[in-house]
Amino acid sequence: MDAMLLVAAGAVLALAFAATMFRRVKGQPAGTPQMEKISNAVSSGATAYLKRQYKGVAIFFAVVFCILLVMAAAGLLSFFTPFAFVTGGFFSGLAGFIGMKTATMANCRTANAASESLNRGLRVAFSAGSVMGFTVVGLGLLDLSFWYFFLRFWYTTVDPAATSELLIQSITSNLLTFGMGASSMALFARVGGGIFTKAADVGADLVGKVEAGIPEDDPRNPAAIADNVGDNVGDVAGMGADLYESYVGSIVSTSTLAVAAGYGVGGVGVPMLLAALGVACSIVGSFFVKTKEGASQKNLLAALRTGTYIASALIMVCAWFAVHWLLPAENALGVFIAVISGLVAGVAIGAITEYYTSDTYKPTQRLSASSETGSATVIISGLSLGMLSTVAPVVIVGVSVLISYFCAGGAADFNMGLYGVGVSAVGMLSTLGITLATDAYGPIADNAGGIAEMTHMPAEVRQRTDALDSLGNTTAATGKGFAIGSAALTALALIASYIDKVHQIKPDIALDLSITNPTTLIGLFVGGMLPFLFAALTMDAVGKAAQSIVVEVRRQFSTIAGLMEGKAEPDYARCVDMCTRSAQKLMLAPALLAVIVPVVVGLILGVNGVAGLLAGTTVTGFVLAVMMANAGGAWDNAKKYIESGQHGGKGSDCHKAAVVGDTVGDPFKDTSGPAINILIKLTSMVSIVFAGLIVAVHLL
Amino acid sequence: MDAMLLVAAGAVLALAFAATMFRRVKGQPAGTPQMEKISNAVSSGATAYLKRQYKGVAIFFAVVFCILLVMAAAGLLSFFTPFAFVTGGFFSGLAGFIGMKTATMANCRTANAASESLNRGLRVAFSAGSVMGFTVVGLGLLDLSFWYFFLRFWYTTVDPAATSELLIQSITSNLLTFGMGASSMALFARVGGGIFTKAADVGADLVGKVEAGIPEDDPRNPAAIADNVGDNVGDVAGMGADLYESYVGSIVSTSTLAVAAGYGVGGVGVPMLLAALGVACSIVGSFFVKTKEGASQKNLLAALRTGTYIASALIMVCAWFAVHWLLPAENALGVFIAVISGLVAGVAIGAITEYYTSDTYKPTQRLSASSETGSATVIISGLSLGMLSTVAPVVIVGVSVLISYFCAGGAADFNMGLYGVGVSAVGMLSTLGITLATDAYGPIADNAGGIAEMTHMPAEVRQRTDALDSLGNTTAATGKGFAIGSAALTALALIASYIDKVHQIKPDIALDLSITNPTTLIGLFVGGMLPFLFAALTMDAVGKAAQSIVVEVRRQFSTIAGLMEGKAEPDYARCVDMCTRSAQKLMLAPALLAVIVPVVVGLILGVNGVAGLLAGTTVTGFVLAVMMANAGGAWDNAKKYIESGQHGGKGSDCHKAAVVGDTVGDPFKDTSGPAINILIKLTSMVSIVFAGLIVAVHLL
Repeated sequence: MDAMLLVAAGAVLALAFAATMFRRVKGQPAGTPQMEKISNAVSSGATAYLKRQYKGVAIFFAVVFCILLVMAAAGLLSFFTPFAFVTGGFFSGLAGFIGMKTATMANCRTANAASESLNRGLRVAFSAGSVMGFTVVGLGLLDLSFWYFFLRFWYTTVDPAATSELLIQSITSNLLTFGMGASSMALFARVGGGIFTKAADVGADLVGKVEAGIPEDDPRNPAAIADNVGDNVGDVAGMGADLYESYVGSIVSTSTLAVAAGYGVGGVGVPMLLAALGVACSIVGSFFVKTKEGASQKNLLAALRTGTYIASALIMVCAWFAVHWLLPAENALGVFIAVISGLVAGVAIGAITEYYTSDTYKPTQRLSASSETGSATVIISGLSLGMLSTVAPVVIVGVSVLISYFCAGGAADFNMGLYGVGVSAVGMLSTLGITLATDAYGPIADNAGGIAEMTHMPAEVRQRTDALDSLGNTTAATGKGFAIGSAALTALALIASYIDKVHQIKPDIALDLSITNPTTLIGLFVGGMLPFLFAALTMDAVGKAAQSIVVEVRRQFSTIAGLMEGKAEPDYARCVDMCTRSAQKLMLAPALLAVIVPVVVGLILGVNGVAGLLAGTTVTGFVLAVMMANAGGAWDNAKKYIESGQHGGKGSDCHKAAVVGDTVGDPFKDTSGPAINILIKLTSMVSIVFAGLIVAVHLL
Repeated sequence: MDAMLLVAAGAVLALAFAATMFRRVKGQPAGTPQMEKISNAVSSGATAYLKRQYKGVAIFFAVVFCILLVMAAAGLLSFFTPFAFVTGGFFSGLAGFIGMKTATMANCRTANAASESLNRGLRVAFSAGSVMGFTVVGLGLLDLSFWYFFLRFWYTTVDPAATSELLIQSITSNLLTFGMGASSMALFARVGGGIFTKAADVGADLVGKVEAGIPEDDPRNPAAIADNVGDNVGDVAGMGADLYESYVGSIVSTSTLAVAAGYGVGGVGVPMLLAALGVACSIVGSFFVKTKEGASQKNLLAALRTGTYIASALIMVCAWFAVHWLLPAENALGVFIAVISGLVAGVAIGAITEYYTSDTYKPTQRLSASSETGSATVIISGLSLGMLSTVAPVVIVGVSVLISYFCAGGAADFNMGLYGVGVSAVGMLSTLGITLATDAYGPIADNAGGIAEMTHMPAEVRQRTDALDSLGNTTAATGKGFAIGSAALTALALIASYIDKVHQIKPDIALDLSITNPTTLIGLFVGGMLPFLFAALTMDAVGKAAQSIVVEVRRQFSTIAGLMEGKAEPDYARCVDMCTRSAQKLMLAPALLAVIVPVVVGLILGVNGVAGLLAGTTVTGFVLAVMMANAGGAWDNAKKYIESGQHGGKGSDCHKAAVVGDTVGDPFKDTSGPAINILIKLTSMVSIVFAGLIVAVHLL
């Protein structure tokens, strides 16, 4: 039987399950007309934003499409590459769009369900999160299997004499461009959405909460709707595109290494089959996410955990059979261990992330205590917490790389070892369906809370949505652990793919990738700097966009008569529109960086320099992303910890100091940090796609 | 004639000039008895601190000395290595101690001179700075030439048949251990002094300025003396030890590469001779630092600039003759260009640093404007400014490496190219005598201002010392540019020395330093994380120490009756003592990191892993150090810019927001940032010294 048929079946299964969940959510009552009105306002704002974003991004895709077409015409790429690029972008955007549509439909339904019970609220929010999770994996597998079958058909028809190796090589290099499309779209979605959501959030908080002293999500705040829209375009659509990219990227990069490792078709099939089996395991796991009425938050977390752990246990069993089926018997055990090492590393990084960012542990508690001496010490402590939290993930990734490399046979054959590293990344993401579901429901609960606040629902509803939101913060931390860990492993696999590709293009090329080679070393330096430049641009963008929202909210407060008394309505749409325009304008520079820098460095320093660049970007990017995500998460939860009554509680000086930390942390954890993950992989994919050009033309 | 005799002569010249300047400063009137009293209090506090620090560090040196002795006994090192290590540490400490003694003597004299005129104040402060500058270079050259002559004598006596290559190899590897001693001492001095100065500064500011609302350096503040002591032990003694280390490190690492490059004794002599000639050029340059009475601040800056530019121009001419004398004619021009590229790169990085940190340019002005929306935006903008400011230095270092590598013959012979890179670092630091003088006078002026404030001198005196202090900030930025640029280049030379050393130990060793080799790559990851961990530990240390000072200052304010009315004296000594104890305790962990991590990584990952570690630490360390130094400098000057009357001036909300930025920036620019420079080089030197052990024993 063809393993790829199972992959296609996995895609269908995932999409069918997503559709079922979608119908289940849609069947829930939407609440009062006022709730539905706000939900619709958020939905239309988010839709307007995404439409505008896709329009802007379409220009970028059109330009790159043309460049790729020219390169294909020049014989530097295969003819399908430009089209693969576009479909990758399209499906990534689609995954985000569906997730966003579901989330904006689910927010009022979650608020309504939460008015009945905490558990009912969880079920609705989790179902909506499942739509997102399974849409992402379903579309990913669908697209992969489509291209696989189409290209196999095409190549066997056009050149029936082609060796199976050559065939697979053509297929995987097209898939890689498809990955580049997905990464490009994800970068725009993450950066644009991230700018939108944080500009609205910071703007709303700074003027509303701090200056005017009104609560969060108060309907009098002109930026309240924009804030909720932001959650959907940034935390939902952005995250969907992001994880679609991670998922596809890890599979594609591993497939690319299969040929060099000597595994042929079977090796290409392993990562795809693992992903497809992961769908089934995730669905089984999600049936275990249930709890009795009146469950405490601890029970709820346990319920979510049970689901993911069952899925993980099942995929381990499945992986055993998958590798033994598709790979030579003498390699199967080693590759299996690589899968396990990836899975375990993902869970371990998630646990570490939770340790550093949850207020049930010392680091975040100490961070809240530092608010006693003012906001400066909160910032210093938070930055230092974030930096300290990079140690364990680096060690975990290092150990995981060593285990997967050597167990997969790296000592005997370099390429087999690297294939093992790639497979470990796939293992880490194989249960993405359910981990993403537990992750994606967080912003939905957040939005539901906003709606509860804006429609003046009873305080207990807000308490329940807050509980769900807070639970979401914990699961989001785990989710970020997976995203970031897999990014590092995938990037390593991509660097290997790059070298592989270069050798395919020019088998007699003399490379010196040694760190003592000056061009490699300078590449390493430039690469090490790139994530800093990227973070600077994205943070600056948030700052600039937030600044304009601050001015606008202040203007509305001072010019709209009766606004503070609740007698007049603010101009919500204007804030949404301003955020949209700022995000569109400001996302361009950082996103283009990922595409332009590797090409420019390649033209100057050649292949050795590019390899250095990729390694440098991966290393610094990984460390910086972990640091920013964890510092941001810890600041957020330190603030929440104080709000729960510690150190003087809400409104105290400590709370004010902690709010400063949280505000600094917002772009850290929701804009710059997660976007760096994508940056790491996109620079690698761009380098691979443009390898032909660089090998032909370079200065040094 | 022997070039090394010229080096010894340079050492004597530098020390004689320093002695002359010392006498000139000492001849100045010390001001009123009250001024002298405070100056003595600061001096005795600083002396007490340094004595305690040296005592603590002595234990570390004793332990490492014993380890090296054991290794020498086991034949892994030459017999003199342990002694070279100790002298490096001793002279580094001595340079810092003399600088500190001069500075504490000069502070009241500068305040007194400033009461006459701005220009007189500058002259006294600059003369005191010169003592420091020329002591550092004089002791450095003295020590280098002593070991050179002693070892040459010894080896020619013990083994007269030894080839000149072997002789030079033994000499340079001993010099390297001497460099490791200097770096170890510098790291302790920078970290310990940095913790002391910033804990006192933050503690004094947070309670005195922010909570009690009294001016900076107000005698009622119990931490006022500790703050001034901190300037001397951190910014003077710490910086002295730091630049001693940079200076010696660049010379030693280049010498080590001379043999591999095939230049023999002449090649070893080039960096030393350049440094010695630099002494003479610096002295000539310093005679041009004079200005007419009533000069504006612009004139003063121009006067300082004239001095450094003349010194730079002279060293270029001297370098031409030096390289043509000592090197084969066909290589001389190339090496000369390498020297020039280093000099130019140093000046360029200094200019960039100034652009990003001086309030006469847009970045810092925009940073002050961000205070309009509160402290959170000040932090975000400052971090983003710091990150953005890393781009140009990375490009400059990259271009400089390429030029010096290829011009020095790297295309034909790898080692000749690397020698060129080393020489460019020496070129950058050759005029250290005068650049350090313009740098070291800043803290003296700062202290003078403190004394003026505490003794209630007329407001114009404080204005003049503030003007000098502010001028010092600009020159300090340039100085930091040199320190950081040379650190990157020196570290690259040291990585090459490491590989060289490994080949010396085991000529048939099979290395794979390619970035696709998993052990190298994991080393790269760990190395990339190391500066983050180091920064976290040092920032945490400042935070913890400051916290205890905050508590103590609050306690004194609330328990000492009549303190706020100026009727009772605070307990200054207790704050000094607390800072001393905290600094001693907290400096240990970060400093040990630099020594332990490379050995542990080596024992596990072997030579390839260590090489990756060094490259990773250099890349991330360079970027992070630039980012922290520039963000810190910009925050400081943004605050000063507001104090000069912009955005509401002193006491406004904007000012309060900017003070938060400045407080966060303090450990950035004066503790963590500069210490990372040392970390980069010390890890390399430790790796080289322990190379014999690692080659013999390692896991992978």
